[in-house]
Amino acid sequence: MMLQFDIESLLDAYARGLSPLAVIETVYDRLEAAADPGIFIHLAPKEALLREAAALGEFDPAVPLWGVPFAVKDNIDVAGMPTTAACPAFSHVPQIDATVVALLKRAGALCIGKTNMDQFATGLVGVRTPYPVPRNAIDPTLAPGGSSSGSAVVVARGIVAFALGTDTAGSGRIPAGLNNIVGLKPTLGALSTSGVTPACRSLDCVSIFALTVEDAYRVFEITATHDASDPFSKRVPKAPLGARPPRLRVGVPAELRFFGDALMEAGYEAALGRLVRLGCQIVALPFDDFHAVADLLYRGAFVAERYAAIREFIETNEAALHPITRAIICGATRLSAVDAFESVYALRALQARIEPLLASVDLLCVPTAPTHYTLAEIAAEPIDANTRLGTYTNFVNLLDLCGVAVPVGALADGRPASVTLLAPANRDALIAALARDLHADNGLGATGWRRRPRAAPPADDGERIEIVVVGAHLSGMPLNGELTALGARFSRVALTAPGYRLYALAGQTPPKPGLIRDETGSGAVEIEVWTLDVAAFGRFVASVPSPLCIGTVRLADESAPKGFLVEPAALNGAADITGHGGWRAYCLALAEPRST
Amino acid sequence: MMLQFDIESLLDAYARGLSPLAVIETVYDRLEAAADPGIFIHLAPKEALLREAAALGEFDPAVPLWGVPFAVKDNIDVAGMPTTAACPAFSHVPQIDATVVALLKRAGALCIGKTNMDQFATGLVGVRTPYPVPRNAIDPTLAPGGSSSGSAVVVARGIVAFALGTDTAGSGRIPAGLNNIVGLKPTLGALSTSGVTPACRSLDCVSIFALTVEDAYRVFEITATHDASDPFSKRVPKAPLGARPPRLRVGVPAELRFFGDALMEAGYEAALGRLVRLGCQIVALPFDDFHAVADLLYRGAFVAERYAAIREFIETNEAALHPITRAIICGATRLSAVDAFESVYALRALQARIEPLLASVDLLCVPTAPTHYTLAEIAAEPIDANTRLGTYTNFVNLLDLCGVAVPVGALADGRPASVTLLAPANRDALIAALARDLHADNGLGATGWRRRPRAAPPADDGERIEIVVVGAHLSGMPLNGELTALGARFSRVALTAPGYRLYALAGQTPPKPGLIRDETGSGAVEIEVWTLDVAAFGRFVASVPSPLCIGTVRLADESAPKGFLVEPAALNGAADITGHGGWRAYCLALAEPRST
Repeated sequence: MMLQFDIESLLDAYARGLSPLAVIETVYDRLEAAADPGIFIHLAPKEALLREAAALGEFDPAVPLWGVPFAVKDNIDVAGMPTTAACPAFSHVPQIDATVVALLKRAGALCIGKTNMDQFATGLVGVRTPYPVPRNAIDPTLAPGGSSSGSAVVVARGIVAFALGTDTAGSGRIPAGLNNIVGLKPTLGALSTSGVTPACRSLDCVSIFALTVEDAYRVFEITATHDASDPFSKRVPKAPLGARPPRLRVGVPAELRFFGDALMEAGYEAALGRLVRLGCQIVALPFDDFHAVADLLYRGAFVAERYAAIREFIETNEAALHPITRAIICGATRLSAVDAFESVYALRALQARIEPLLASVDLLCVPTAPTHYTLAEIAAEPIDANTRLGTYTNFVNLLDLCGVAVPVGALADGRPASVTLLAPANRDALIAALARDLHADNGLGATGWRRRPRAAPPADDGERIEIVVVGAHLSGMPLNGELTALGARFSRVALTAPGYRLYALAGQTPPKPGLIRDETGSGAVEIEVWTLDVAAFGRFVASVPSPLCIGTVRLADESAPKGFLVEPAALNGAADITGHGGWRAYCLALAEPRST
Repeated sequence: MMLQFDIESLLDAYARGLSPLAVIETVYDRLEAAADPGIFIHLAPKEALLREAAALGEFDPAVPLWGVPFAVKDNIDVAGMPTTAACPAFSHVPQIDATVVALLKRAGALCIGKTNMDQFATGLVGVRTPYPVPRNAIDPTLAPGGSSSGSAVVVARGIVAFALGTDTAGSGRIPAGLNNIVGLKPTLGALSTSGVTPACRSLDCVSIFALTVEDAYRVFEITATHDASDPFSKRVPKAPLGARPPRLRVGVPAELRFFGDALMEAGYEAALGRLVRLGCQIVALPFDDFHAVADLLYRGAFVAERYAAIREFIETNEAALHPITRAIICGATRLSAVDAFESVYALRALQARIEPLLASVDLLCVPTAPTHYTLAEIAAEPIDANTRLGTYTNFVNLLDLCGVAVPVGALADGRPASVTLLAPANRDALIAALARDLHADNGLGATGWRRRPRAAPPADDGERIEIVVVGAHLSGMPLNGELTALGARFSRVALTAPGYRLYALAGQTPPKPGLIRDETGSGAVEIEVWTLDVAAFGRFVASVPSPLCIGTVRLADESAPKGFLVEPAALNGAADITGHGGWRAYCLALAEPRST
């Protein structure tokens, strides 16, 4: 049985009786079959995992990652497993899990081991490690990408269902792009970095590799939580991964850099074409200032953060570092505090200039990487190739954008194409929703598995507020324009729960009904649910005239959105029209000639 | 005629026919009478001001600072006047006004000159200048305070109506406190720093000295505007200076430091007593982390910002600096970029620990300065005295708090007492409203003038939506925090129109009433009106649980704002408590032992 290891498939299989012991056996079988000694720096003994799996007991659908195997980049602590950050001399065994790992374990997930990486997360190539280099899952002559190389490869090969990485300069996106999987890089501070070996503390975040956007976003929802033990932790919205607005404005670089890789350019252009077919509007933006921000990451003083991250270690173990990593990080010792603040100012000036560009669109779409490099090419020019790989990633965390790298198909030569959707902080749900729709179904990672058929999209994203309309605001009715003028979106026709009465109010222009809860009645009333953003909702409620008010309306589907009710004092002279089943039916009945 | 130079009095006098030429004559007469050569570094020739005043033409009440004389700290550019930052070798004549100055001139204000200061705004004492030291306006043996020494003294003496300062470590508050005037230090980024010689660019802000809070806030409203030419500029709310919520929670340091000045301690305690009488609740907070933040300002790497601010100048003119200023600023050259980021991390960790303390109150009240120092004392220990003066100011900008220093009376020995109200960014209007009510009427500055009688507070602005709260959301009640967390502002206590009934609902936690219109009744119910912006209103309504709803509530004053009503279906088992007159009275009656 070739069980798909995307999370949804796994949970479905568990629900049908699959044993987690079988899943663990499969994990280790697949790892052995991959024959890639570079993926894991530390692998948990199979026996330990089998015990953990057995300890799960009966399948519990309320435990959101029950029995789901995952891997962790080796700069994130897992209690009892060594953390090396790909530097053997740095190895130490933490006694407690990083906050994100603890949350995943609590959600039922099973940690298989710690994955290889560019040492101290400094690099986008995936080869700056003293351990064997993990092999690109699609083409072993290509660089796997980094710094989260092992985490990307292990997901792309279908060995685990998801993996944690980190992302400072693009380490959560580049290896996703180079291995045909999804890389979700959250808003800074959304996922705790407690228990993570820092790279640049002010810019680091934990990232998520998965086969599908739905899976990555599920892990995001479980792990995004404020953590008082991490000073950089923030409270961020976790809107459900719902429908997306149909007409998004997508900013793209006015001038593109592919370094001569015409196939990658064609892959990107094709993805823009798909965005247009998905209803998006493409807007070319000048990108010079974005590139200038990117330059600050290694050419400005922020590299001193990498030194500060491991100051004690490096001051006594400089020789233990990978030569390229050492050259980059120790360069920071030449920089003064004055240099540091001047870099901060330069960044702030660029941020201020970029802000109106970002405000002119809903999100950005950039190539994840401009090209692929072979291992031989990287060996020939280890710094320059790395810099070019970061063309569309290095600026992102300095601007506090969130991002999702998503596969957009295979190029003519079989290499994977990927774009990254980016947006200002806290729009994680928006870009994930579009990434989900954009994801090409050319096989997940290197597995050949297919995405599962999409369930019908849920009604609306959570940043909008549902409102039940009952009468003159129904679609096609006289006051519906008040809703649409406020940007309201139609969600669905629905029935109230039993126990409401609908009255035709006396003396209203235009004619209006009034809905009122009356547990003694058994009537259900047909209504419409619309959604508004919070400000529009506020404006709308403020405009509702007496005797109507906005309360809670229980629906037959057991949801209870806000909606129109009426004050009982207004029922004098009103006719009970509950029997018509709704205002639209009542109006039609009035308009039709009576049949006798 | 001893014309008061607060802005309101001046504009009133202009409206009654006063000539701005007479005002300019008065400015120069008063300056001559003050006989203090330390106030101005550059004074505009009287003839030039008379020409400017004449060019104003007819009084125009729509020009909000028509003919109002002001002064500008000498690190803020005024076109055609030299900027020295109190360092003659740094002197240069800018061709364009700083953005704030341009806004004030456009509003009709007349700039008299550039005021003395601690060199490069480094200091809180006011004596670190190569020019004569401005004399404290209340007692010439005392330090004037700094760094905005001249701007504070010139306002305290009633020579100009207001003055601009800058504030990085307390330079907009300390000299206000030591000279018995108001010092408004806005949220960082609210006022543009374009055209301002930086001290610490990430922490600098332009501040406002005035005789009254109303005047300072008027200048704030005119100058607070986003400026694309300043990368640190932000869009901040400019709520009108309206009514304040009646029951504010005010955090104060659990342990206080007055360095043996028992009179200052008594002055502070008296001010807390006044806050209690104004309806505030005093909450003692541990303050160690605030002091730790303060220590970072000069002992951490942020001092490198002061070097960066004048890097080019200092590298060729080091000998031109005041010896103490030089010692402080040049100390930064020993600091590395790694040190800088470690200070940033230390600050972030403290911010994260302080955040819940700030969230537990609406604002803070601290002494502006813990004590006064004589000029002789400062000469004896120039660094330590300065550090102590900053006990309650140095942490403020590092936490992005806004602040208003406000006079709270004269001590037994005649020295002025002052407290500073502080709150997280964007609560400028809230702290100003409380500062206005707290301001002691012991004479404005050194003038002996009195505050004008308060006009009735203006109604709320039209972008906010009124909401009638009836029960658990009343001030001091369990759910009031839901309102204040959304930025709600208290408007007024009011009565409903007759024809409402109030019920104590059954089975609600916390206990809640329900209001319902019933024209057969004659009861009126006491409620509170709060206001919310539209988005907050939307969020709030969306959170209102069944059986409550938001409808229209008719008030006794014939207004009809939105407000809480209840579904009639919820009145089963509810007690009619209309006779109590309101929910607060009902709760009090429940809590009190019955008298028989």
